[in-house]
Amino acid sequence: MTTAPPARPAKRGRPGYDLESLLAVAVQLFNERGYDGTSMEDLSRKLGISKSAIYHHVPSKEELLRLAVDRALDGLFATAALARELPGSALTRLEHLVRGSVLVLVERLPFVTLLLRVRGNTKVERTALARRREFDQLVTDLVAEAVHDGELRPELDPATTSRLLFGMVNSLIEWYRPQGGSGGEELAEAVVAVAFDGLRVRPQNPE
Amino acid sequence: MTTAPPARPAKRGRPGYDLESLLAVAVQLFNERGYDGTSMEDLSRKLGISKSAIYHHVPSKEELLRLAVDRALDGLFATAALARELPGSALTRLEHLVRGSVLVLVERLPFVTLLLRVRGNTKVERTALARRREFDQLVTDLVAEAVHDGELRPELDPATTSRLLFGMVNSLIEWYRPQGGSGGEELAEAVVAVAFDGLRVRPQNPE
Repeated sequence: MTTAPPARPAKRGRPGYDLESLLAVAVQLFNERGYDGTSMEDLSRKLGISKSAIYHHVPSKEELLRLAVDRALDGLFATAALARELPGSALTRLEHLVRGSVLVLVERLPFVTLLLRVRGNTKVERTALARRREFDQLVTDLVAEAVHDGELRPELDPATTSRLLFGMVNSLIEWYRPQGGSGGEELAEAVVAVAFDGLRVRPQNPE
Repeated sequence: MTTAPPARPAKRGRPGYDLESLLAVAVQLFNERGYDGTSMEDLSRKLGISKSAIYHHVPSKEELLRLAVDRALDGLFATAALARELPGSALTRLEHLVRGSVLVLVERLPFVTLLLRVRGNTKVERTALARRREFDQLVTDLVAEAVHDGELRPELDPATTSRLLFGMVNSLIEWYRPQGGSGGEELAEAVVAVAFDGLRVRPQNPE
């Protein structure tokens, strides 16, 4: 079976690829060889279609990059928006945000991997980095609120706390590989447990 | 002042560079452009000396890579050896290992950064990856011992725990920048505190 059922209304184009499946292959190549190290020629060879068939779907390589990193960023911002709407303490919302971010990472692994490797050489990359900083600021603000409410340890400044927190989350791209669908929820719980309650067993572990 | 005092017995070579200062510049370039993306020509241009002057110090680009990643790996293994010799519980030794690894990272930041980006295209890279796996196994064994002793939470398997732990440690290369000498000890304490006791404030925080 070479024709994947289109996940969204198919654009015109050569049979066998819609924008979605083309994007998946492009992201795989970008992750393997680096964005700068991948040409439209490489992509055309990998897909087995001509460059003009690719340009039928997208105007440029940079547009493929934009679509890919937005897939990751949109997921993260949707999670942040949900977390902010939650009733409950700042800590509850922060835990929700961490859990949700792990799930986005697991579900959109190739897109998040690409996002985390973006270095800022093009306009699309600089925009992505700016959105990442905006997301980091949301996390830092929530950490600061939870520290202010006496729920999080105050010795660390909120920016350092949020970096350590998402350092752990983001490091998942280095080793996590999905195994048949499930596993994301468990992993998200594990990360939240380690981050907020630590690895040490306590005589009476408060729940 | 262009001639740095040699940190170790100077090899013959053009005045202005000993092996140590040459290695520092090479590692900086490798980190900026990638190892594959850096030629001896690039290095010669950056240093302002001829390629043959470089070959006076080292036989190949790969030998520079080997020296650099060994600088990181030797530091990590020395820390692991010290931790293993410590009296006390497995958890105490693990905390020591995490603290020491943060200090190695801070003190040898460019070398550890390079090590963590190694992908395994050459013999030197494959050897470095094998030593990284060996180090990971030391951490995992110590985690397993601490879980067995009832000191670490048993819900996670030891390999996942050690990945989350060193995910947090290794993520420091993404943002930590030394500011005038100190700061490493504090950062190491912060990482140990977050990893083992979590971010949450408890009514009675046992020390």
